[in-house]
Amino acid sequence: MRHTGQQAIYLAGPGHGGSALVAAGYLEGTYSEIYPHVGQDEAGMLRLFRQFSSPGGIPSHVSVTTPGSIHEGGELGYVLVHAFGAVMDNPDLLGIAVVGDGEAETGPLEGSWKGVSFLNPERDGAVLPILHLNGAKIAGPTVLSRKDPAEVRRLLEGHGYEVLEVAGADLPGMHHRFAATLAGAWSKIRTIQHLARTGEWDGARPRWPLIVLRSPKGWTGPEQVGGVRMEGTWRSHQVPLSGVRDNPEHLAMLERWLRSYRPQELFDATGAPTEPVRALAPEGELRMSASPHANGGLLTRDLALPDFRDYALDVPEPARTRAESTRRLGELLRDVYRDNPDSFRLFCPDETSSNRLGAVFEVSGRAFAERVTADDVAIGRDGRVMEVLSEHNCHGWLEGYTLTGRHGLFATYEAFAMVSASQTVQHGKWLQEAGRLPWRARVPSLNVLLTSTAWRNDHNGFSHQGPGLIQVVLTQRGDVARVYLPPDANCLLSVADHCLRSRSYINLIVIDKQPQPQWLGIEQAVEHCARGAGIWEWAGTDDGAGDPDIVLACAGARPPGRRPVPGAGLRRGGHHHHAVRHDGAQPRLPLPPCHGRDQQRQAAAARRRRPDGLVRAQARRAPGVRGRAPGGPAGGARLGDEGLIGPDA
Amino acid sequence: MRHTGQQAIYLAGPGHGGSALVAAGYLEGTYSEIYPHVGQDEAGMLRLFRQFSSPGGIPSHVSVTTPGSIHEGGELGYVLVHAFGAVMDNPDLLGIAVVGDGEAETGPLEGSWKGVSFLNPERDGAVLPILHLNGAKIAGPTVLSRKDPAEVRRLLEGHGYEVLEVAGADLPGMHHRFAATLAGAWSKIRTIQHLARTGEWDGARPRWPLIVLRSPKGWTGPEQVGGVRMEGTWRSHQVPLSGVRDNPEHLAMLERWLRSYRPQELFDATGAPTEPVRALAPEGELRMSASPHANGGLLTRDLALPDFRDYALDVPEPARTRAESTRRLGELLRDVYRDNPDSFRLFCPDETSSNRLGAVFEVSGRAFAERVTADDVAIGRDGRVMEVLSEHNCHGWLEGYTLTGRHGLFATYEAFAMVSASQTVQHGKWLQEAGRLPWRARVPSLNVLLTSTAWRNDHNGFSHQGPGLIQVVLTQRGDVARVYLPPDANCLLSVADHCLRSRSYINLIVIDKQPQPQWLGIEQAVEHCARGAGIWEWAGTDDGAGDPDIVLACAGARPPGRRPVPGAGLRRGGHHHHAVRHDGAQPRLPLPPCHGRDQQRQAAAARRRRPDGLVRAQARRAPGVRGRAPGGPAGGARLGDEGLIGPDA
Repeated sequence: MRHTGQQAIYLAGPGHGGSALVAAGYLEGTYSEIYPHVGQDEAGMLRLFRQFSSPGGIPSHVSVTTPGSIHEGGELGYVLVHAFGAVMDNPDLLGIAVVGDGEAETGPLEGSWKGVSFLNPERDGAVLPILHLNGAKIAGPTVLSRKDPAEVRRLLEGHGYEVLEVAGADLPGMHHRFAATLAGAWSKIRTIQHLARTGEWDGARPRWPLIVLRSPKGWTGPEQVGGVRMEGTWRSHQVPLSGVRDNPEHLAMLERWLRSYRPQELFDATGAPTEPVRALAPEGELRMSASPHANGGLLTRDLALPDFRDYALDVPEPARTRAESTRRLGELLRDVYRDNPDSFRLFCPDETSSNRLGAVFEVSGRAFAERVTADDVAIGRDGRVMEVLSEHNCHGWLEGYTLTGRHGLFATYEAFAMVSASQTVQHGKWLQEAGRLPWRARVPSLNVLLTSTAWRNDHNGFSHQGPGLIQVVLTQRGDVARVYLPPDANCLLSVADHCLRSRSYINLIVIDKQPQPQWLGIEQAVEHCARGAGIWEWAGTDDGAGDPDIVLACAGARPPGRRPVPGAGLRRGGHHHHAVRHDGAQPRLPLPPCHGRDQQRQAAAARRRRPDGLVRAQARRAPGVRGRAPGGPAGGARLGDEGLIGPDA
Repeated sequence: MRHTGQQAIYLAGPGHGGSALVAAGYLEGTYSEIYPHVGQDEAGMLRLFRQFSSPGGIPSHVSVTTPGSIHEGGELGYVLVHAFGAVMDNPDLLGIAVVGDGEAETGPLEGSWKGVSFLNPERDGAVLPILHLNGAKIAGPTVLSRKDPAEVRRLLEGHGYEVLEVAGADLPGMHHRFAATLAGAWSKIRTIQHLARTGEWDGARPRWPLIVLRSPKGWTGPEQVGGVRMEGTWRSHQVPLSGVRDNPEHLAMLERWLRSYRPQELFDATGAPTEPVRALAPEGELRMSASPHANGGLLTRDLALPDFRDYALDVPEPARTRAESTRRLGELLRDVYRDNPDSFRLFCPDETSSNRLGAVFEVSGRAFAERVTADDVAIGRDGRVMEVLSEHNCHGWLEGYTLTGRHGLFATYEAFAMVSASQTVQHGKWLQEAGRLPWRARVPSLNVLLTSTAWRNDHNGFSHQGPGLIQVVLTQRGDVARVYLPPDANCLLSVADHCLRSRSYINLIVIDKQPQPQWLGIEQAVEHCARGAGIWEWAGTDDGAGDPDIVLACAGARPPGRRPVPGAGLRRGGHHHHAVRHDGAQPRLPLPPCHGRDQQRQAAAARRRRPDGLVRAQARRAPGVRGRAPGGPAGGARLGDEGLIGPDA
């Protein structure tokens, strides 16, 4: 970087290898700039050591607290998806992603090598994966480290890479060979990009370089402890020397090990890094630990958003027209693509058209770096709509894209959204932790749209039905995750506009894509969404003069279609003499807070006394939220699909 | 199969290709044997067609209702993990697994090719993957179908397979070539197994055969519809011809297409399959649709279980000793391994020892078909403990293992259990649907043990904390999924014994692995677990004479450690004049039913009037269950970690 000016970020996959990146950030000076109490002196260094892997301190993996990171090395498997997402539409960025050989065994990681099949060297940056085979995980060897090296090479070449290898344990030879290989890889990447950007590219998917690094696990640590081999085995995982307080022999080994780094050459008498150490780092934002790409809020520009009202559906009267609510959103997203050619992408497992969002293809095709044919439609190397049949890739790419300051939406089938639920959970934790760190600027929200809902999959059956993700998101903090259940097309437009402007949330939007009754004109929709709930006077007979006898409360992804006036069912039940009120809620959960929109009115509406009589809940979504998949309620009494509940439910 | 007597089951990965397997089961006669109303005549065939992909009928993918299947093709990605799990300890079984090229893009599928790195040809059966590259998914091409075929070959060879290829669209040439390739693959498999089973194997991982089949998507269907090419493109996905009722041209094309199968040669005048068609199928249980391996309850034998009381921890007095509760379970599992050498396996992402279950290694090492070294411990081709750093593989292998009638346990870290949460959900749905089909025999339960709990990861931080899976399992039906929170080692033994005897449940057991206070002697534990909750008289001052003033209710994975007598905190609060009662609950959720154990007593205990005064809940697990990760409560008042709640909470 000092020589080339290359902008780069690191992504460290291996679990407990965070110490290396924390140390690097400290030596680069970034750590002390961000955390002044961890200064570059003896007291600061002591603090740096003491907080490591301690309750209330920092984890032993790379985490939110580590400067320069957009990737947490806790739940393994996502280092490459984050790297690929980060470099999309980021032509000058190099994502250096270290894949541990333990992590390489996970499904999400194995499914993410194919990021190169979606990368465009002209417009996107590059990812340099470094597969670090040190041979072991917690308690045993790994598959890749014990396969014939030729087989590993074939595997990675099969994924589309040019494999460069560095192996050994000799010093300083390993350093020199690795540095030379790194320089070679960089040069290959720059050549690919240069050809593509000067019009000399034939359009075929490049063979991007990849480094396989083989070094012993626990390298340079104690070779043996208590007569048992340590270096090069799983025993050196995390804590190679235990009980150093009480075991003088272990303490001596630890001291010998640490002195082998020759600290007297690295630090001066005050504990500050010496000039040769400082001189190793590039300047300012070229330091990987200080890259603004890894603190993406610093680079975030607001999206150029058209007025969502321009896409409104004309609803002269409630429930008289039916429409596929997501089609209008597709038209809005088409123009978001048009007006933000390098800062917005849609991510979807092959369902963009199925989700009625196909209007985006008028502006951008699907991204694809592999061969296309004459029969293909809206797909190719210039496309920027990301379709891959992998929720893990879609979700992870979007995380990488937003954490580096760009905007996006992940649209997926409701039942299969659980595939990437753990990513949603971990991303929510990242956002929550980041919110506590003043130096981390807020990033674009991770927006998730579910449109193929549980209620529309009768023909596909139970496996395709399950409102699981909403349940997962509801367990996250309200200042990190929000759930939106817009009842119709115009409310969806209002909600989408809000979500695309928001920062550092997980926004989950659930709405059915099939033709559904439309309820609200655009201005009514805006007011309804701003309040989060509304009283639909036209659906009841309450004149506001007194307390109604019956309140019909409706919340969910699928408003009552079969009974456009929800009171009808009750009237047949003999309650037609009562005044009824219909509450059409568009819940933004968890509550509170309420995004600052008219919180009082919502709270007041919720507080209104409920009548003691029968309450009928048109709660299409509620069964899932309350703990049930549509397969049927459990033993106890539950709020069923359009089911009756007592007044205290 | 007719010629060789080979026992085989099919596993169909591709989503909407279920029609092929339903049709095959119908032609083999199995369908009518299982569903007599779908007979082999005209009326039965009409029913077969009408129920297909219809609400209340059967899905268009292979599902629970399909005879011969242990795999549902809804949520894609698990066809190989199910196949590998099915053939473990099943030396005579061949699992023929068709991988769709859409499914092949998913992370879980890409992570599952390496099943061969854990297979032993001497003791296990074989998996024959057929990667069917038809070129497209719902709306576009797939990565593998558009890569250079040489690259695909390298990829699969890198995974360790010998790649056999069949490609084309000529008929009957394709049939002949595929049949010959299938025979060749079978012969290679038998040779590998024969060598291994006659002592002529050198111990190296075999190169198992794999077939890559390239045929056009929508093959033999209409080539063009409305002037647009259909066959060979994504347009032929699922419904190649629409609107046949109203479009006579499409109707004619449909008729032409269906007549191309020459139904007059396949069926007689009554609609029954003709003799040549019947003669194609093997006899009885050799029919893949009738294999008992795919209805594993038929083959399930009870485990030989030692008396769990023999592993009891001596607890002379409550809370005076501390112990790692899972160690005793490890000793029990060791003997389960010993006594069930071909019908029990433990599945774990590299954490068996970390979870204190390492005693199993006294009997069985870890399974590993790759190279082992002199430094390795308890690992090799004879091992049967399944460690792979992939929750997807662990979970899926166990599903395949139990659905074919064998027993097992999946032990994993609590926070990362969400990685495979969608598998848990889908397996629960499978069990629920299977429970409605009288012909599906009940199978061993899928047991999941979480021991590295949220509360023990302060040093690893927030990413390692999250009681997510319990939340997911709680949303499943109580007759399908159960949650166990044993408070100590002896309760864990009782719970484990119960779970290993149970059938067709998902049993989630959560217990901390670190040294914790021990509360109950083994007989007390047995009674406590049978009741599901207990009044711990020794922890309170209630003499049973009247209603207590204060009830301390405790439920969770981590009983109050810092205050062995939970009243202590309250006494400091000035409540020491009140009589207190301590309820130590070991909830088995969802409730009811309660496995028939003393349901009345439990219900009675729960009904006892709570006092109106302050209630202190030592609910270590409750925050997660009630919707919070340990990162902190959301805006509203919640039950916090050891937090105070009001009497109406």
